[in-house]
Amino acid sequence: MFEEGVRLKARLGAENVADLSLGNPVVEPPAAVVERLRELAASPDAGTHRYMPNAGYPSTRAAVAAHLARRTGVGYRGDDVVMTVGAGGGLNVIFKGLLDPEDEVIVLAPFFVEYRFYITNHGGRMVLVQTDERFRPDAKAIDAAITPRTRAVLVNAPNNPTGVVYPAEDLDALAEVLTRRSEEHGRPIYLISDEPYRAITYDDVDVPWPVRHYADTIHVTSFSKDLALPGERIGYVAVNPERPDAAQLVGAFTFTNRILGFVNAPALQQRLVEGLLDVKVDLAGYAAKRLRLLEALQRHGYACVRPEGAFYLFPRIPREGMDDVDFVKACLEERLLVVPGSGFGRPGHVRISYAVTDRDVDLACEALGRVADRVRG
Amino acid sequence: MFEEGVRLKARLGAENVADLSLGNPVVEPPAAVVERLRELAASPDAGTHRYMPNAGYPSTRAAVAAHLARRTGVGYRGDDVVMTVGAGGGLNVIFKGLLDPEDEVIVLAPFFVEYRFYITNHGGRMVLVQTDERFRPDAKAIDAAITPRTRAVLVNAPNNPTGVVYPAEDLDALAEVLTRRSEEHGRPIYLISDEPYRAITYDDVDVPWPVRHYADTIHVTSFSKDLALPGERIGYVAVNPERPDAAQLVGAFTFTNRILGFVNAPALQQRLVEGLLDVKVDLAGYAAKRLRLLEALQRHGYACVRPEGAFYLFPRIPREGMDDVDFVKACLEERLLVVPGSGFGRPGHVRISYAVTDRDVDLACEALGRVADRVRG
Repeated sequence: MFEEGVRLKARLGAENVADLSLGNPVVEPPAAVVERLRELAASPDAGTHRYMPNAGYPSTRAAVAAHLARRTGVGYRGDDVVMTVGAGGGLNVIFKGLLDPEDEVIVLAPFFVEYRFYITNHGGRMVLVQTDERFRPDAKAIDAAITPRTRAVLVNAPNNPTGVVYPAEDLDALAEVLTRRSEEHGRPIYLISDEPYRAITYDDVDVPWPVRHYADTIHVTSFSKDLALPGERIGYVAVNPERPDAAQLVGAFTFTNRILGFVNAPALQQRLVEGLLDVKVDLAGYAAKRLRLLEALQRHGYACVRPEGAFYLFPRIPREGMDDVDFVKACLEERLLVVPGSGFGRPGHVRISYAVTDRDVDLACEALGRVADRVRG
Repeated sequence: MFEEGVRLKARLGAENVADLSLGNPVVEPPAAVVERLRELAASPDAGTHRYMPNAGYPSTRAAVAAHLARRTGVGYRGDDVVMTVGAGGGLNVIFKGLLDPEDEVIVLAPFFVEYRFYITNHGGRMVLVQTDERFRPDAKAIDAAITPRTRAVLVNAPNNPTGVVYPAEDLDALAEVLTRRSEEHGRPIYLISDEPYRAITYDDVDVPWPVRHYADTIHVTSFSKDLALPGERIGYVAVNPERPDAAQLVGAFTFTNRILGFVNAPALQQRLVEGLLDVKVDLAGYAAKRLRLLEALQRHGYACVRPEGAFYLFPRIPREGMDDVDFVKACLEERLLVVPGSGFGRPGHVRISYAVTDRDVDLACEALGRVADRVRG
């Protein structure tokens, strides 16, 4: 499908194809990022590019911890944080540290496709549980999927691919299940919360902090979206200091960060983000594109859960029973690139990214109408 | 041992302990690196921090390939290169791409201790083969260790921990074995050449290129030592374009770079190194420290193979039959931190790093004499 998109662009010219298939931030980093990088490059400290401890610079870890403590009310300290090569690196570090062979990790569908690799890389098994029709966690279904081998539940909100944010009541329901089943098994089932889109929200939505609802939460995130630095590979993992195994987890993740060959998060990027933890990209562009695409979807008869965060829409395809891969092929005929929902574990839908240019949105709004007409025959 | 060193420094003051235990480059990056980073930060291109293809920027890959082609005479193209998160990241990418469960990788002892993790992370088994008394490959012993499960032989020259460079005749002998056994098994046994110290050499020694001696060579390296950027995590893997499986290997390594959570090598560092491939740190400091320590070792009766590269010495401990861990404890008593050879798979020796300050060398030269007296009793 990706290759077909490449061929289409080569044939028609990239400017005539609306490519809404990728989650590559189109906005530039905030001015404060550019300025700080300039400062760091202009007057480098001695030893600035050397190895530091595998968990990261103590000052960066302390700054991240203070930021989390302010936001969550949980007493994070620098010792509870491991700086990582993005959230993708962080998740691999977590699973390598946590999983024994055949251990199970519950993932809520639709889900970010890389999760399957991140789990199986380290001998784990991914157990998929569908969310409800609003793409929110189904606590009963999760309860039913838990076995004595369940080591963790992985959540991602604001979600890729749906943009959905889980409200506090969903986290409470999930916490009730995890607390009860952890006690039953005599060891914690961890809640791993992957939150690279936390700062990318709309309509003043509140994104609850999972750790405030469930103590055995491992927080993992990156600066890829909030500071628009995805190519620089900088993120972190934080464990709850109020749990008895906090030091053991941090020790394990520091070790796995080393032995997986990450060694440490990129030095310069650690220094860069240290003072920019409350900064984020301008969301006005994303917000406008989201509304325009939502309006176009509605106008052309697509059912779509209104996303509250990230930069994705995940509409239902507008013909009952049609295969989503066939639908994406029809989109290609109309010069629109989107991703089939079945790739995210939820057939019958497509993912539309609005981390794109205004022109892409113009073309897409028109193409969505033509595709709907075409597939409805 | 490491913890004892930390306690010793806390008790006596770090300035009174000679810490020669780490391989963290003490020199600053070349002026050209500082200048280029300043330029990149001062006038960033649009989209400069975004995701790029998982194998890296086409321009960076092309520059690396042209550099390798000039040096080796082999026709590397950009498509044969995958930019990685340092050589540690590169080795994990290679083993994840290459190994099936229980596949064997032959490693020559003494060896960089992380290799064991890099191999077992991905289901492989490390098979250790001792080098000879000069720390050079023993082709007969390697031949004897090869089984139908042998997927690769990993070499590292200039070597950590010995500093030894393998001459052309050693690579020819190794190539003869690998060619013969590959034919016998009907699939290539790859030679993985980990070369982060290639630019760190002395006495005008020539470091032969393994790919010129054996076609199924996978080259992996970093800019950690030659540009003194270890904290920035930038390196690459290159496969020989003259082999029929080159595209398949690059495809596999691009995929494993993605799914292991590296995603791509840090964007800014790729742009940084692109124009600096022929630049390296000033070696005068390392060269002087090497000679001073070699002289001190000789004066105090330590037998030591004269290293031609890297920044390590690997002397025999000066009392026959003494356990190397006990010897390192005796060094601690004399306020000298070094690493026992048994950690590198070669008991009876210690590793001394001269990536240290002049003061550390002063203290170490004296301490080596006191330790020799002490252990000879």
